[in-house]
Amino acid sequence: METGGGFRLERDALGTVEVPSSAYYGIHTARAMENFAVGGRRVNPHLIKAMITVKKAAALAHLKLNSYPPGIAMAIVQACDEIHAGGYEDQFPVSALQGGAGTSTNMNINEVLANRATQLLGGTRGDYTVVHPLDHVNCCQSTNDVYPTALRIAAIGLVRRLSDAFASLQESLQGKELEFADVLKLGRTELMDAVPMTAGQGFGAYAKAIQRDRWRLYKAEERLREMHIGGTAIGTGINAPLRYTFYITGLLQELTGYGLARSEYPMDPTQNMDVFVEVSGLLKAAAVNLLKISGDLRLLASGPAGGFGELELPAVQAGSSIMPGKVNPVMAEMLGTAAMRVIANDSAVTLAAGSGQLELNAFMPLIADALLDSLELLEQAVHLFNERCVKGIRVCAQRCRELLERSTGLAAAFVGPIGYERSAEVAIQARAEGKSIRQVLLDRGLLTAEQIDGILHPEQLTAPGVPGKRSE
Amino acid sequence: METGGGFRLERDALGTVEVPSSAYYGIHTARAMENFAVGGRRVNPHLIKAMITVKKAAALAHLKLNSYPPGIAMAIVQACDEIHAGGYEDQFPVSALQGGAGTSTNMNINEVLANRATQLLGGTRGDYTVVHPLDHVNCCQSTNDVYPTALRIAAIGLVRRLSDAFASLQESLQGKELEFADVLKLGRTELMDAVPMTAGQGFGAYAKAIQRDRWRLYKAEERLREMHIGGTAIGTGINAPLRYTFYITGLLQELTGYGLARSEYPMDPTQNMDVFVEVSGLLKAAAVNLLKISGDLRLLASGPAGGFGELELPAVQAGSSIMPGKVNPVMAEMLGTAAMRVIANDSAVTLAAGSGQLELNAFMPLIADALLDSLELLEQAVHLFNERCVKGIRVCAQRCRELLERSTGLAAAFVGPIGYERSAEVAIQARAEGKSIRQVLLDRGLLTAEQIDGILHPEQLTAPGVPGKRSE
Amino acid sequence: METGGGFRLERDALGTVEVPSSAYYGIHTARAMENFAVGGRRVNPHLIKAMITVKKAAALAHLKLNSYPPGIAMAIVQACDEIHAGGYEDQFPVSALQGGAGTSTNMNINEVLANRATQLLGGTRGDYTVVHPLDHVNCCQSTNDVYPTALRIAAIGLVRRLSDAFASLQESLQGKELEFADVLKLGRTELMDAVPMTAGQGFGAYAKAIQRDRWRLYKAEERLREMHIGGTAIGTGINAPLRYTFYITGLLQELTGYGLARSEYPMDPTQNMDVFVEVSGLLKAAAVNLLKISGDLRLLASGPAGGFGELELPAVQAGSSIMPGKVNPVMAEMLGTAAMRVIANDSAVTLAAGSGQLELNAFMPLIADALLDSLELLEQAVHLFNERCVKGIRVCAQRCRELLERSTGLAAAFVGPIGYERSAEVAIQARAEGKSIRQVLLDRGLLTAEQIDGILHPEQLTAPGVPGKRSE
Amino acid sequence: METGGGFRLERDALGTVEVPSSAYYGIHTARAMENFAVGGRRVNPHLIKAMITVKKAAALAHLKLNSYPPGIAMAIVQACDEIHAGGYEDQFPVSALQGGAGTSTNMNINEVLANRATQLLGGTRGDYTVVHPLDHVNCCQSTNDVYPTALRIAAIGLVRRLSDAFASLQESLQGKELEFADVLKLGRTELMDAVPMTAGQGFGAYAKAIQRDRWRLYKAEERLREMHIGGTAIGTGINAPLRYTFYITGLLQELTGYGLARSEYPMDPTQNMDVFVEVSGLLKAAAVNLLKISGDLRLLASGPAGGFGELELPAVQAGSSIMPGKVNPVMAEMLGTAAMRVIANDSAVTLAAGSGQLELNAFMPLIADALLDSLELLEQAVHLFNERCVKGIRVCAQRCRELLERSTGLAAAFVGPIGYERSAEVAIQARAEGKSIRQVLLDRGLLTAEQIDGILHPEQLTAPGVPGKRSE
Repeated sequence: METGGGFRLERDALGTVEVPSSAYYGIHTARAMENFAVGGRRVNPHLIKAMITVKKAAALAHLKLNSYPPGIAMAIVQACDEIHAGGYEDQFPVSALQGGAGTSTNMNINEVLANRATQLLGGTRGDYTVVHPLDHVNCCQSTNDVYPTALRIAAIGLVRRLSDAFASLQESLQGKELEFADVLKLGRTELMDAVPMTAGQGFGAYAKAIQRDRWRLYKAEERLREMHIGGTAIGTGINAPLRYTFYITGLLQELTGYGLARSEYPMDPTQNMDVFVEVSGLLKAAAVNLLKISGDLRLLASGPAGGFGELELPAVQAGSSIMPGKVNPVMAEMLGTAAMRVIANDSAVTLAAGSGQLELNAFMPLIADALLDSLELLEQAVHLFNERCVKGIRVCAQRCRELLERSTGLAAAFVGPIGYERSAEVAIQARAEGKSIRQVLLDRGLLTAEQIDGILHPEQLTAPGVPGKRSE
Repeated sequence: METGGGFRLERDALGTVEVPSSAYYGIHTARAMENFAVGGRRVNPHLIKAMITVKKAAALAHLKLNSYPPGIAMAIVQACDEIHAGGYEDQFPVSALQGGAGTSTNMNINEVLANRATQLLGGTRGDYTVVHPLDHVNCCQSTNDVYPTALRIAAIGLVRRLSDAFASLQESLQGKELEFADVLKLGRTELMDAVPMTAGQGFGAYAKAIQRDRWRLYKAEERLREMHIGGTAIGTGINAPLRYTFYITGLLQELTGYGLARSEYPMDPTQNMDVFVEVSGLLKAAAVNLLKISGDLRLLASGPAGGFGELELPAVQAGSSIMPGKVNPVMAEMLGTAAMRVIANDSAVTLAAGSGQLELNAFMPLIADALLDSLELLEQAVHLFNERCVKGIRVCAQRCRELLERSTGLAAAFVGPIGYERSAEVAIQARAEGKSIRQVLLDRGLLTAEQIDGILHPEQLTAPGVPGKRSE
Repeated sequence: METGGGFRLERDALGTVEVPSSAYYGIHTARAMENFAVGGRRVNPHLIKAMITVKKAAALAHLKLNSYPPGIAMAIVQACDEIHAGGYEDQFPVSALQGGAGTSTNMNINEVLANRATQLLGGTRGDYTVVHPLDHVNCCQSTNDVYPTALRIAAIGLVRRLSDAFASLQESLQGKELEFADVLKLGRTELMDAVPMTAGQGFGAYAKAIQRDRWRLYKAEERLREMHIGGTAIGTGINAPLRYTFYITGLLQELTGYGLARSEYPMDPTQNMDVFVEVSGLLKAAAVNLLKISGDLRLLASGPAGGFGELELPAVQAGSSIMPGKVNPVMAEMLGTAAMRVIANDSAVTLAAGSGQLELNAFMPLIADALLDSLELLEQAVHLFNERCVKGIRVCAQRCRELLERSTGLAAAFVGPIGYERSAEVAIQARAEGKSIRQVLLDRGLLTAEQIDGILHPEQLTAPGVPGKRSE
Repeated sequence: METGGGFRLERDALGTVEVPSSAYYGIHTARAMENFAVGGRRVNPHLIKAMITVKKAAALAHLKLNSYPPGIAMAIVQACDEIHAGGYEDQFPVSALQGGAGTSTNMNINEVLANRATQLLGGTRGDYTVVHPLDHVNCCQSTNDVYPTALRIAAIGLVRRLSDAFASLQESLQGKELEFADVLKLGRTELMDAVPMTAGQGFGAYAKAIQRDRWRLYKAEERLREMHIGGTAIGTGINAPLRYTFYITGLLQELTGYGLARSEYPMDPTQNMDVFVEVSGLLKAAAVNLLKISGDLRLLASGPAGGFGELELPAVQAGSSIMPGKVNPVMAEMLGTAAMRVIANDSAVTLAAGSGQLELNAFMPLIADALLDSLELLEQAVHLFNERCVKGIRVCAQRCRELLERSTGLAAAFVGPIGYERSAEVAIQARAEGKSIRQVLLDRGLLTAEQIDGILHPEQLTAPGVPGKRSE
């Protein structure tokens, strides 16, 4: 019913509400917008998209089952396709931080699809006698099976994108491992001068950690594949015929191309959210690796004069208004920022997942928001960090060599040829006189320059075994 | 330089970038948009607004000091006023999760103000010879003093709004305390039947907790008032004349109306972020109270038939598509969701604040984003929860009485008149036969109905002392 | 050197320290005890035990390599065996929260083994000319490869014990699933009356979640198996001959019986701690499941008169001094407490793991303490919770039925036979008159008692499909 | 009843249990030991001590009220004094991580006091007809008012000790501020060379942060002073006469000497735990400052050859078995470890505090354990860090000067005398040729050595204003 002024009136059990005439969403959405006017972030578009996929599969299942007139099912399917194609983004205005276990998101989607399908069948928005949000679009469904199923589908899609981002980062790091394979430098433990390594080895260690992150994501996908669509309100499947459940499961496999499987015990995933805690925990493990890499790069590039100065990170923007020429490691900092946000999101996922009660978890919208945010954020941050930082890193080989030779950590390398005691003496003299180990060795006539060079060689210093005694 | 196609070319030390001709922001902003294309949330508008206030104060200070031509200062001031008035929101497109300690936000604002001031003076956007982002707008400033100062100002503004929201909630809770003062009910510890109380007392306890939250916010404001504007890059105040610092401090006090004070030791707030951890920690304490209230209300309103059923929360939207007539406690759930997000944000604030190094904390943008988000979110959630839930709560006095009388917890009230042993016997019989304590007392002829009513009276049961022995 | 008064004097590069004559530990341990006199918890005994295993393997490797006199190696091995057998617990007094990446724990063990081996060879404690803590016990090792290797071994042992505890819990839960398979009850979503289920199904859902936790632990073990023993200080393997590394790896496989594997890139596990974050994250997922179960049981057993009262948990201790006969769900609360501590420990693991710098993580002792504590705590809590709570849970079938029949949620079950509209009317009347759905159906003559019983049957109500239309 | 073999038999409503004849604790404690055999840490002794203080106050109150024979009260008081004096530590064996809101700790104390008082009156342990754990020791009390009251008292005591530790640390830091006031060095932002400062200023900034922590603790004490003793089970005060409550409140003020106050609304502190979240949050803010200081010191002392090398931390133990002469910053690492544990404990406090339900929070034991652990740990760590690290820190003035002069950050200081453009040229040349700014200025004949020294002076470089233009 048009009320004039660009609004139509919709009615539910609680009364009537004015909805913008041009809106595809309806009264439930309008109420939810007001009830949950918090936080300024809408429901994640990847979740919306996955919900639409589930609705399409449901409509196709009902088409097979002949649950309602085929024309209605086909109109719903077409509406789904249109929304997937884009242009309806503003029709999903409910806050991400909503009460109610996702009901408002499900109803929002039911309403938009019903209204668009109604239009496709020649009807008017708001006239739910043609296509009904509940009786048709939501037929045999409950928020409680649709919403988590969609969340899993959305998460799998983002997991795959993140996996690709990690693959590229790993590749770049391995590229640097190779590129800097011959640059000898000082290794440091507890930030104190330790034993030699190559600049490449440092990147190799990062690459290994990222490789593990990729592998974990691969495992995460396995866990996300279990769906309980057809479980309806509490997982018992009340009001969802078994044939419907079989059909929609198969259709979702087809539509997504993911290896989705039907849960053996749908009551379990309806109420238990540990899988999202697990996946978020894996993202947190990745975040910890990224924090480490971010911190190391900032440290190794610090200075340049008054810090470690071993690496040079690409300059991507001017660093300071007050200090001309200053360039800051902003891409590494951005990566660290994203990693910290992911760790904080994990806290939200954990809190929400631990707050389930009996047959449902009312806080699924927070889980969805935090988990999908972490996935997206990591993907974007890793991608940009790789493209705008890692790929352009240069090593200051001269500086690396200088610090190594100045450090007494190098003394350990001469224990083989000249003995522990004399090595220690050399180290002490070098430190006291501000000379390099090499210089003191030469000054004392303990070794020739050729001998020293023979030992101060990557293969001798940075591979397993006692330097100068490789045969053992 | 217009490059055609709606773009102009801007140049910095790293090269040139095309910027939309219609943009007030410039090259630094354009680079930052690309570098930090993560997370989908922009810098908090309250922070932008506070930054503009700082810039206005700086321009007014330079007007007094005659640092540069007065016309420029006045144009900057006018530009600030325009932005405060609204309409420039799309000119601050940098992601909230940026690297670089806030430099990109500061530069974004410098550029927008320079370009708008240039226009006001008859110049063209991109021609920084008229008004320069650094030489004029940022004169005597560094991101490192401007940004945290603005963050404190923004936080104080939101703290005050949140304080108002808490005041309203406290008032409503106290209203319920009064309204339900005569409704006797069962108190429960560890969810097990305990001793009697009134329904009003429960709300009184909530009101007290919220009162403490208000008081804490008041204290939080005290801590936020310390500014180190004039400290520039690391707090030593290099390149900021003392007179400038005195002027801008006074101007900021005037412009904000807040009791801002100059830090005694500007190097400290430049690098130490504990104040934001403290404030976020206070918000977390509030969140814990809200979680408790949210959980209790959901518990007390559970059922209605198969749960506690003592309270009825207002219905604000339909609860289920599959179960007709079901109404869910969505406002309380929304409140719980917001509280969990605040706890997670606190984790982000803590991580970022603990990651400062030497003279600066590079992760201030994350602190700002998380802290301001918590403040806004709580304000919105508390307001809506109060308006749409608390105010409309009704008590089911009949149900309260029923549960109390059925429970053996009531037996404790008769220890005075009939002794411990007989009270225990009554309790056991009541439980075994499914009768109320009252009934068993009558059946056994231990007390008359009048005597029982005299004891089962709020004043006897829910005030300090031994029921029936009030004289002591 | 005996100094009299029950002390001997030991010396290192920093000076001399008095050590109790009866102590097997030496000067490094004595210093560490004073430096780290914090927190009141010693290094986890499981870690000590695993360190001893590594030392034994090292001594056996050197026996094969003939690195030093075989008598020394055999004495070290015997000392290891003695410590494993017990009786030396007080010789490892260093605080769990120590600085220094575990060096003090490694040195503590080196000293105890050296002194005991010295004794076995006829020497005196403190005379390191016989068996030397570094030259012999620590030969070819560094804290940085020994300590994390031992941590992995200790963790695997505890993971297996926890896995067994989960298996027992799962079995008990499945036992209850079967035992309560015929008890119809009300399912609840968002704590509001929803649709029917059986009491057994609730336990089935818990069992499924716990099953996942077991499976995750199995996977966790896989990740923990990668060792970098032989990597020495930073993973390059400096001063550790390859043959030694091969031998010790094989010996550790043998001694532990675990499928330990040599890291492909030892620099990676020396510095990257993500694996422990991953495992801790899996424990956190388990903790979330336990929190959920703990909360549900407390809810379902609440009352008994003034709460849900559907379950009765075994009484394991008196509940209240002031309220006679009160019994509290203390085992479920203990489980929840342990779960929360595990979540908090995960926060410590994450913080520590994210604080690695360059070639090492100095905060491994915190990781070790928190992770091993979580593993032990979960094992103990799950075991006790299973034995003293789950196994003795009883269902109040009568109460379950009452609540179900009183609730309007049951109305959904009659949509099939009498239609949606009349079902809704029945529900409304039942609620208004405080009658059961069954009673109203009978009063209105809509269905016979037999028909009602046919529908109110577990198989009709709690399996997939539309009640009364199972053929579809 | 002695059962032989060193055991006596005790009985409660659930049956009988054998208790060691020599034990002062009784059946409830024995059950609790078995029920909560988790975690390996007992109830914090400071909490036990404060509980004893509350029991003493209660006995003294009953002495005044003549609630039971004065001899009994006096025996209880004497027992309290004996326990305070020490020697009964092994009588409180219940795990810190217990279910049941602290009931087991309260009962443990009731039993020990009853048995010891019984002995004092000539009776035998286990014969509760002389002094009864509930009827006498616990008279007019509930765990729910005794336990949180004791927790507040214990926390205040530890807060004061921590405050002293912070005061000493602040003093040492200020000592270093003064000691290093003339040492010019490079300031760094985002780890990149920035503008000059003095080594003293760095310590001054730390001192300010610690001063804030002290001030916060002072405020924390205020919050902890509110007691609800006399509120009994749920805060209504049932079974506690008002005169008793007045007496015990006054006695607790006297016995503790703390400014304890009676809660205006005892139901509030019985169920709301936000105060502990607040205090824990303040400790977290302190932890963040300590993390920052720990990280900075490790950074500034890094190297010494291959790192920043500006500071030298005292050597407190040998650093490495494999790298001779290596000394690690273990005290700073220990401090960081403690800080991380405090942050993790805060997570436990938050989770537990957010899990209160209705009239009580069952998870108070976790709150108590985590909060008291944080307080103790911080006190110990801050004390040791101060004594063994801060006090002995030395600055390498030569190194500081070198890095400053080598860095182009210094160029900013010459903008005054030679202009921005020439300063920039000097900076670029210096960087390119590896020369110091001073050298290039001299080479180019831009300034004399005297002029340069005049500018490179702490007062010019590290105080507010434009270097060389101090008059403005």
